[in-house]
Amino acid sequence: MTIKIGVIGTGAIGREHIKRITNTLSGGKIVAVTDVNQAVANQVSEELVPDAVIYPDDKELIAAENVEAVLVASWGPAHEQSVLAAIEAGKYVFCEKPLATTAEGCKRIVEAEMRQGKRLVQVGFMRRYDSGYVQLKEAIDSNFIGEPLMIQCAHRNPEVPDSYTTDMAITDTLIHEIDALHWLVDDDYKSVQVVFPKKSKHASEHLQDPQIIMLETNSGITINAEVFVNCKYGYDIQCEVIGEEGIARLPEVSSIVTRKNAKLGTNILMDWKQRFIDAYDKELQAFMDSIKLTGEPAGPTAWDGYIAAVTADACVKAQQSGQRETIALGKKPDFYQNNVTSKV
Amino acid sequence: MTIKIGVIGTGAIGREHIKRITNTLSGGKIVAVTDVNQAVANQVSEELVPDAVIYPDDKELIAAENVEAVLVASWGPAHEQSVLAAIEAGKYVFCEKPLATTAEGCKRIVEAEMRQGKRLVQVGFMRRYDSGYVQLKEAIDSNFIGEPLMIQCAHRNPEVPDSYTTDMAITDTLIHEIDALHWLVDDDYKSVQVVFPKKSKHASEHLQDPQIIMLETNSGITINAEVFVNCKYGYDIQCEVIGEEGIARLPEVSSIVTRKNAKLGTNILMDWKQRFIDAYDKELQAFMDSIKLTGEPAGPTAWDGYIAAVTADACVKAQQSGQRETIALGKKPDFYQNNVTSKV
Amino acid sequence: MTIKIGVIGTGAIGREHIKRITNTLSGGKIVAVTDVNQAVANQVSEELVPDAVIYPDDKELIAAENVEAVLVASWGPAHEQSVLAAIEAGKYVFCEKPLATTAEGCKRIVEAEMRQGKRLVQVGFMRRYDSGYVQLKEAIDSNFIGEPLMIQCAHRNPEVPDSYTTDMAITDTLIHEIDALHWLVDDDYKSVQVVFPKKSKHASEHLQDPQIIMLETNSGITINAEVFVNCKYGYDIQCEVIGEEGIARLPEVSSIVTRKNAKLGTNILMDWKQRFIDAYDKELQAFMDSIKLTGEPAGPTAWDGYIAAVTADACVKAQQSGQRETIALGKKPDFYQNNVTSKV
Amino acid sequence: MTIKIGVIGTGAIGREHIKRITNTLSGGKIVAVTDVNQAVANQVSEELVPDAVIYPDDKELIAAENVEAVLVASWGPAHEQSVLAAIEAGKYVFCEKPLATTAEGCKRIVEAEMRQGKRLVQVGFMRRYDSGYVQLKEAIDSNFIGEPLMIQCAHRNPEVPDSYTTDMAITDTLIHEIDALHWLVDDDYKSVQVVFPKKSKHASEHLQDPQIIMLETNSGITINAEVFVNCKYGYDIQCEVIGEEGIARLPEVSSIVTRKNAKLGTNILMDWKQRFIDAYDKELQAFMDSIKLTGEPAGPTAWDGYIAAVTADACVKAQQSGQRETIALGKKPDFYQNNVTSKV
Repeated sequence: MTIKIGVIGTGAIGREHIKRITNTLSGGKIVAVTDVNQAVANQVSEELVPDAVIYPDDKELIAAENVEAVLVASWGPAHEQSVLAAIEAGKYVFCEKPLATTAEGCKRIVEAEMRQGKRLVQVGFMRRYDSGYVQLKEAIDSNFIGEPLMIQCAHRNPEVPDSYTTDMAITDTLIHEIDALHWLVDDDYKSVQVVFPKKSKHASEHLQDPQIIMLETNSGITINAEVFVNCKYGYDIQCEVIGEEGIARLPEVSSIVTRKNAKLGTNILMDWKQRFIDAYDKELQAFMDSIKLTGEPAGPTAWDGYIAAVTADACVKAQQSGQRETIALGKKPDFYQNNVTSKV
Repeated sequence: MTIKIGVIGTGAIGREHIKRITNTLSGGKIVAVTDVNQAVANQVSEELVPDAVIYPDDKELIAAENVEAVLVASWGPAHEQSVLAAIEAGKYVFCEKPLATTAEGCKRIVEAEMRQGKRLVQVGFMRRYDSGYVQLKEAIDSNFIGEPLMIQCAHRNPEVPDSYTTDMAITDTLIHEIDALHWLVDDDYKSVQVVFPKKSKHASEHLQDPQIIMLETNSGITINAEVFVNCKYGYDIQCEVIGEEGIARLPEVSSIVTRKNAKLGTNILMDWKQRFIDAYDKELQAFMDSIKLTGEPAGPTAWDGYIAAVTADACVKAQQSGQRETIALGKKPDFYQNNVTSKV
Repeated sequence: MTIKIGVIGTGAIGREHIKRITNTLSGGKIVAVTDVNQAVANQVSEELVPDAVIYPDDKELIAAENVEAVLVASWGPAHEQSVLAAIEAGKYVFCEKPLATTAEGCKRIVEAEMRQGKRLVQVGFMRRYDSGYVQLKEAIDSNFIGEPLMIQCAHRNPEVPDSYTTDMAITDTLIHEIDALHWLVDDDYKSVQVVFPKKSKHASEHLQDPQIIMLETNSGITINAEVFVNCKYGYDIQCEVIGEEGIARLPEVSSIVTRKNAKLGTNILMDWKQRFIDAYDKELQAFMDSIKLTGEPAGPTAWDGYIAAVTADACVKAQQSGQRETIALGKKPDFYQNNVTSKV
Repeated sequence: MTIKIGVIGTGAIGREHIKRITNTLSGGKIVAVTDVNQAVANQVSEELVPDAVIYPDDKELIAAENVEAVLVASWGPAHEQSVLAAIEAGKYVFCEKPLATTAEGCKRIVEAEMRQGKRLVQVGFMRRYDSGYVQLKEAIDSNFIGEPLMIQCAHRNPEVPDSYTTDMAITDTLIHEIDALHWLVDDDYKSVQVVFPKKSKHASEHLQDPQIIMLETNSGITINAEVFVNCKYGYDIQCEVIGEEGIARLPEVSSIVTRKNAKLGTNILMDWKQRFIDAYDKELQAFMDSIKLTGEPAGPTAWDGYIAAVTADACVKAQQSGQRETIALGKKPDFYQNNVTSKV
C-alpha cells in the first residue's frame, strides 16, 4: 500500500521531503504539489516528480480526491490555514514546525482535530527520531539513571545571518529543545527565566548571543538550556540528563578518531543539515508506517505543537522581562493521552 | 522506475532483504521468490510479499520475464550456479557472500561477466557502506594520514556455536575484513601468516580462538587482524590505519554516555545484527540506484569476490602450515578498473 | 635550605600535611606541633615526627624561634586568631580553608598582612595546582578559546553524612569552585542566584540537594555551578569554559579504559581524597619553593580568602532569599595585584 | 633518615635525577658526584649541589664512606663496572638502563648480587611506576579481564635523529616494553619474530621504521609491539591487554578536552620527557623508601635487567634473520622470586 501525498510548499524543505519520499523512503508517493510561487512548483515537479499534479493553491490540493496525506512545508504563517483545511477534509497532515505561529492558532488546530475524533496531525519535530535521543529516552524510561532532576543542554551553531534576532533564539532554535525535553522526561513546563551572559563579539549588534534559558517542569526538574548561535567551532547539540542514580548524555556525532599534529580527536559538524539527516528520514517513514499500521500518525501531536507555541511565547516574554515567567498549558486533553508516539 | 527483483533463498538473510526492499528502501519490488524448501518460500511470500510469484527453482525464477535483478541469498554452495545463470540471462545479481565457495568458481563468474561485456554482479560486502569505514576511506584518500603503513584491526564476537570451526574464523569472519581492507587502501594482498595466541577457555575444544592473521600487501602495508569469536564482552569491530602523517580509527558504535556506579562509559553491542544495519540498507539502495543511474551496479564486484576467495584460501592454508603463504591473484582485468564503487 | 614548619591542628588534614612534608615533599621539616587536644598532638608527633616539639597552644608554637612557617589545620573558627598571630610575628602561614569564618575576619587578616608590608599568607585552595585546571587556565590565558562567556561546572559527591546542611553546599563544597573560577578567568564576582531543582530522594530531609548556583562576574561571564552531594555514582568535578572561539573542559580522571560485559568505559573515583592528591602535594611544595625563591608565598592570597568569604556569604543569602544577591568585594588593593600565583 | 647518594655520570639524565632528589623528593641527599668529564661534574655540582664532593672516578665515589647508595647514569658501556663495584662494596645501586650492554654482563651482576646475599640493585625501568601501567596491572592481577591472551602495544616518537639505527628500535625504544610487559602479565618471553612494514618516507635511509615485534610468552600470550619512531604526530605509548573476559587499555595522557575549528579533541605530547615524569619521581622515591623500610630496593631487579638484555639480543637477531628466534632465559633464581616489586 502506497500513501499518496500532496506537498504544500516546494521551497528548500519541501524539496528535501519530496526527494526523501521519492528516492529514499518506502511506501509513499508524491501525487500533488503546490506553492505560492507557481513557477517554483512547476520546476520542482518537473525535476523530481513529473507525474505529480500541480495545484494552484493548498485548498485545491487538499480537495483532490487522490491526495491521502498532506505535507505542509510552506512558510510558517501559512501553516494554520492548510492544516485546518486538511483536518476538515479528514486527511492526514505532516506539518513542519511551527504548527501555527500563535498558541491560539495551535489551539484551533487541536480543537479541530478533536472534533474529527481521530489523530490526523504529526508535527515535524524530528529529534524524537534521532538515535541518540531515543537511547537517552530509553535510559530514562528504564529508570537506569533514576528520577531525572536536572537537564543540561546546549544548541550551538557556528554562525547565523544578520537577519537572526534575539527572539529567534527561542522560536527557531530552542524550539527543538522545547519539544524534545518535555518528551524525554514526560513532564510539562511550569516556568522559565532567561539570562544573557557576556555577549560574543561575533554576534550582530541586535542579537543577544549566547543566552541561557532556565526552564522548570511541573515535577521540579531544572533545565538549563544554552543557545549559542555564533559559537564558531561547529554545529553542536548537547543534552545531559542528571538523575538520582546516574547521568546519561547524548553521544557525540559518530566520527573517525584521528591522531595528527599533536591532537587526538574527532570531527564536529559545521553544517546543521547533516546532524539530524537520519532523523528526518525516520520521522517521515514513521508517519507513513503508523498511518498504515494503526490508521493514525504516531509522532509528535498537535498538542505537542501547542505546547511548543505556549512555551516559546513564555520564553520570549522572559527574554524581555528578565523575570521568571509562568508557562500555563492547561490540562492535556484525554484525546492526546497515551498516544503511541511517546512510547516510540 | 522500480526494479523488479527475484529472491533466490528465503531463509533468514533472504527474508531480511525482502523486508528491507519492501518496507524501508525505495525503488525496488520483490516480484519473485524461490527456495530449495518450497514451504519456506510459500510462507515468506504469503507473509511479506503476497503478490510475488513463487518459482520452483532458481533457473525458472531467473528466466521469468519480469525479473530484472536477482538477489542470491541461498546457501553458499548454491551461489555460483545462480549467479552464472543470471549473468547468462543478462540480469543483474546481488549475491550474498561468498560469491562462490572456490576461487575457481569466482573466476568462472568473473569470466562470464566479462563475456557479457558489462557489470552485472554486486557482492554483499556491506562494510564499504558503513559510515565509519566511509569516513576512514575518505581520510586515507584525502591523504589526511599520509601513506598507510600498517593496519591494526579486530573482529570480535561474544561467542559462537559449537559448530564453528577454526577455518570459519577466515571464511565466515575475517572474510569481511579481507574485502574491506584492500578496498580501504586500494592495494592487493601478497602474503599471509597466521599466529595462534594462547587459547581462550571459552573456545570449544576444536576451535583455535583467538587468532592473529598478518597480511602483507603488494606495496608493503602490514595488516594485523585479530579474530576473537569468544571474547565474551561484545560484538566489536575495530580498525585503525597508521599512516606516515597520522592515524585514523573507526568510531565506536554511537551510544549515550552514562555515569553510574563509579563507571563512565558507553554501551557495546552484543548482537552483530545491529552493527551494520544501516550498511545493509545502504548497499542494497546503492545497488538499485546505481543500476538506474548508470546501468551497472557500483558496489563490490565479482573480481572483489574472487579476491576474497583467493585470499581466504591462502589464510586457511597459513592456519594449517604455520608458514607465510603467498596470495597469488593475477592481474586485475581492465574490465574491473575504475569501477565507480571504489570511488563511493 | 629547609623551611622549619610548625603545625597547628593535628587532626586528619594536619596529619596528612605532616606526612606529606616529611615523606613526600622536599625542603620542609616539621619542627613543632600543637593541637587543642594535647593527646592527639602527642600521638601524631610520636608516630610521625618524634623530633618535633609539642607546644601547648598556637601562640607558643608561633613564638618559637625556630618556627619559620606555620601550617594552620585546626578547625575553622580557630583559623583567624592563629593566622593573625603568625602575621604579627612576621612568619609565613599556610592556612587551610577557610581563612576565617567571616568576611570581616578575612578583612582583618588582609589588613594585618598589608601592615606587615609583605605577603606571608597562602590559603589552601589546591585546585589551582591540579594539572587539569592548570591546562584549562593555560587554554584561557593563551586565548585558545577566545574571551570566556560562560562556565558550566559541577561538584558531585556520592553521598554526605546527615550532618551536612544546605548552606554547607556553599561553605564546604562550592567554596573550591568559588576560588578556582575567578582565578581561571581573572575576574571578580558581581552577583549570585540560587535555584533548587527537584530534590533527590537520597538527600536528608533537611538538605536541599542538588542546587544550582548562578554567578555573574563583573565582565558578564555567567557561571552555572551545580552542587550535588548525593549523586551516588561518584566523586566528580566537571568544569567547562565556553569562549568566543571554542570550548575547553577539564579532563576526566585518568583511568584505564576497559571493555567488559557490553560496556566500554573508565573508572570514576568514589573517594574525594584521591581526586586532588597531586594538587595537595604541589600546593605545599609551591608554598615552600616560592618562599625560598622570592621570600613570599606565591599561592592563593589572603585577598583570595576574603573573596571566598564574601562570595560564600552572598551565596548563602541567595539560597535563603531566592533572589539574585549582590557580591560586593570592594577594590582589590594594589598590594595584591600582580601576585606571582595568578601566573602559575 | 636521609639516604646519602653518590651520582656516577652527570649528563642530562644524571642532572635530572640530582634535581629530582634535591628539589622534589623526600629522604635523599646527593653527597657525591663524578663524571668522566670532570668539568661537567664540577659545573653540575656548583649549580645544583655545592655541598657534594666531586670524585675523580666511580671507584673512589663508591668507596667513599658516606655514600650509601649509588646512582649510575653514565653511558651504557660503563654501567657494568660501576654496578659490580657498588655491589662488591655492599652499597645500593640505582642503575639506569641498560644494566649492562650484554646479557653476560647482566648475568655477572646477577651473580655478584646473589653472592652478596641481599638485593642491592634497582634498574631504572620507570614504567612500572606510571599510574596507567599500575592500573593496568591491577586490572590483570584482580582478574578483571580474565587470563591475558594477547597484548597490543605501540611506542611512537615524532622523530629521531639521523644517528638512530634499526637495532636501536629494540635497545633504546622497545626495551621499556620488554621490561613492562613481562612484569604486567607475570610471564617470561619464549620467542620473537620481527616484521618490517612499508617504510615511512620520514625515516632515514639506514633505518627500518616502523617495525612490528611479535613476542610470545611461555604461557602462549602473543604480544604485538609496534615501534614507530618517525610517526610525526606525537610521542604516544599505547598498551592494550586482551583477556578471556575483557580488555584493558592504558589511558591517554590526561588533557583538557577542547572544541574548536570543527574538532573535538585532546592534546598529544610531542616531548617524551613529559610522558613519564611522574614515574621518574616515583621510581626513585620508591627506591629510597623501600630501602628504608625493608633494607632492600623493591623495584625492577638485576634479573629484570638480565631479562631485558637477553630479550633485546633475540629481538635484534630476529630483525636480522627475519625468522622467529628463541629467547632462552634459564630458570629464574629463587633469590629473585617473590620480590616485593612485582607486587607494587
